[in-house]
Amino acid sequence: MALVTLTTDFGTTDPFAGIMKGVIAGRAPNARVIDVTHGIPAQDVLAGALVLRQAVPYFPPGTIHVAVVDPGVGGPRWPLCVETTRALFVGPDNGLLSLAAPKPEVLRIVHLTETRFFLPAPSATFHGRDVFAPVAAALATGTSPAALGVEAQNMVRLALPAPAVEAHRVQGQVIYVDGFGNLVTNVPGELVEGMGRGELALRIRDVQVRGISTSYSAVAPGDPVAVVGSWGLVEVAVREGSARARLGVDVGEAVVIERP
Amino acid sequence: MALVTLTTDFGTTDPFAGIMKGVIAGRAPNARVIDVTHGIPAQDVLAGALVLRQAVPYFPPGTIHVAVVDPGVGGPRWPLCVETTRALFVGPDNGLLSLAAPKPEVLRIVHLTETRFFLPAPSATFHGRDVFAPVAAALATGTSPAALGVEAQNMVRLALPAPAVEAHRVQGQVIYVDGFGNLVTNVPGELVEGMGRGELALRIRDVQVRGISTSYSAVAPGDPVAVVGSWGLVEVAVREGSARARLGVDVGEAVVIERP
Amino acid sequence: MALVTLTTDFGTTDPFAGIMKGVIAGRAPNARVIDVTHGIPAQDVLAGALVLRQAVPYFPPGTIHVAVVDPGVGGPRWPLCVETTRALFVGPDNGLLSLAAPKPEVLRIVHLTETRFFLPAPSATFHGRDVFAPVAAALATGTSPAALGVEAQNMVRLALPAPAVEAHRVQGQVIYVDGFGNLVTNVPGELVEGMGRGELALRIRDVQVRGISTSYSAVAPGDPVAVVGSWGLVEVAVREGSARARLGVDVGEAVVIERP
Repeated sequence: MALVTLTTDFGTTDPFAGIMKGVIAGRAPNARVIDVTHGIPAQDVLAGALVLRQAVPYFPPGTIHVAVVDPGVGGPRWPLCVETTRALFVGPDNGLLSLAAPKPEVLRIVHLTETRFFLPAPSATFHGRDVFAPVAAALATGTSPAALGVEAQNMVRLALPAPAVEAHRVQGQVIYVDGFGNLVTNVPGELVEGMGRGELALRIRDVQVRGISTSYSAVAPGDPVAVVGSWGLVEVAVREGSARARLGVDVGEAVVIERP
Repeated sequence: MALVTLTTDFGTTDPFAGIMKGVIAGRAPNARVIDVTHGIPAQDVLAGALVLRQAVPYFPPGTIHVAVVDPGVGGPRWPLCVETTRALFVGPDNGLLSLAAPKPEVLRIVHLTETRFFLPAPSATFHGRDVFAPVAAALATGTSPAALGVEAQNMVRLALPAPAVEAHRVQGQVIYVDGFGNLVTNVPGELVEGMGRGELALRIRDVQVRGISTSYSAVAPGDPVAVVGSWGLVEVAVREGSARARLGVDVGEAVVIERP
Repeated sequence: MALVTLTTDFGTTDPFAGIMKGVIAGRAPNARVIDVTHGIPAQDVLAGALVLRQAVPYFPPGTIHVAVVDPGVGGPRWPLCVETTRALFVGPDNGLLSLAAPKPEVLRIVHLTETRFFLPAPSATFHGRDVFAPVAAALATGTSPAALGVEAQNMVRLALPAPAVEAHRVQGQVIYVDGFGNLVTNVPGELVEGMGRGELALRIRDVQVRGISTSYSAVAPGDPVAVVGSWGLVEVAVREGSARARLGVDVGEAVVIERP
């Protein structure tokens, strides 16, 4: 039984995600569909790419991951299928798939040129329904990625900003803010482990936090805390509160971690 | 394996939709349930009817579509099952099912008078749980629509406002605004195709757009654009932005399309 | 085929719930997962406990209910499995499971000490993914609750505020506000039935309502109404409107019901 996931910026007020599932149910009745999320901020390709990268390792190998954050829909960007050592991906060639499909894992990149796998008369505004869902259904029923189109050498790749690392100092930035208001940075947990996690100080805006903890409960409710979070990255949180609201910061905000 | 869909105004914060699925799982363990959406604006029967009409064609024939936008719950409106050439529908008789079940497709309308298919002691405030979910489960396990109650001749029908069409001019209106802020009008795509799509001008509030395009990428990011959208209707959008926010308009706003 | 439900405060913007489903799909491929809701207000354990108590009776016996509203994640609170006469529960020992698992129904309480059922190297911030989802998958594939850890005598129990009952007067309070803005109180429907439902007056803030009705349609659209709602509790609503917005009240607001 094939497993298909959906990651989009469609939200949950409109029927867009439901309609994609209808298309898949009609063409691959035995496929099971799981929503990763439809809450990617509208047209935020980097957020979608990050979320997909975080989610994929927790799904069984061979899962078909469909992702649609597609500001260029109807324009010249290619629709894509990417096969990796781990999974199959379907979505637009705008970088959305690139963080979950790092180069060393890529087995095959296919431009979806075989329009017979699409819905008839596809629109130019809703490829989720007309292109990506039916292609996922084709994969779910055993169509090989190679049959879907023409092999390509490359795909658009997003670059995540890398933290600037010195001997006793790392400068990073906030790359994602979750619904609790936790601020996820681009600083890997291993980096701060190596620097002596508990001895470090983290500064963001006008807030300074002592030590990188392992859980929110290291501080009192209402207090800011830095942890190595569930993404394996340094996060800034406020226990039982929202760091986004409390600190008034968002994606892009600089974070400095150093030995005081 | 029966397929059941849910379209409601229950939102996703409360357990209402989940509880409906629990009832269905208990009574029809093999049925599969897909959410079309639970994001219909509260008590907006017309929006629910439009969404259902859009979604139904993308589901397999014979799907059981349950819809609950039901401001008159507990009052005299009938609970209904409607069988069409395409699908089965379950919901209140307040017009919600009418756009997805146009007269020529209707095979049978049944008032749900056989209360033995309901949960015991149904409430007067949550027929989704107590009436519509168990009736959907009955259909999913093979109960015939005719067994559910008394055949009726008519159901409440909603009238969508029709655009006013002259030789080189159409006046329509916004009938739905999606979560991206795209403004869906009641002007069919075929109409503007026949008038020479690319030569037309569209006016809404104080914004004029040149040409009806086929995709958002016909304009630069941030610019307004008119397209024939995925509903087959003329839509006004702002590329990579929200037309609702930018134009400050909502459902009901007039739109004029003419040859300049 | 095992049935697993999820009740969390994870929201629908992040991939947290989807990732839990990925973990379950990998370890219990035949389990079916239903979302009760991911819209519990962040860290509101009591709201989660209430929602779970409302939802559980509508699911088949033996369902595995996973609940995660877990402000103390990573701290000393135990992860728990509770077996009752009705269902299995998995979640933190902070009271979240207590209203759905009342003492007389409890067969067994187990502290989840057998870490071999967890994901390897569990984080201290996302036990939904690393502890509760894999434990639910273990139960879904036939692992006995007793195998998951060490039996415990007690679990944290939440006390719902009880209404103060006199001969012709009940003073209660709002304990939950749903997405429609309906105000659910702690006053049981049977209590007001016994007092002569239709003869009573309800006061909340500066609004007085005559009679406890059985459905919203007892009043005109826009008017406040008191009903015995689908939770079996007295609710204050505004027909086709939001009582929360109209009355400006929230959880904790006092409600007085008396014979005038």
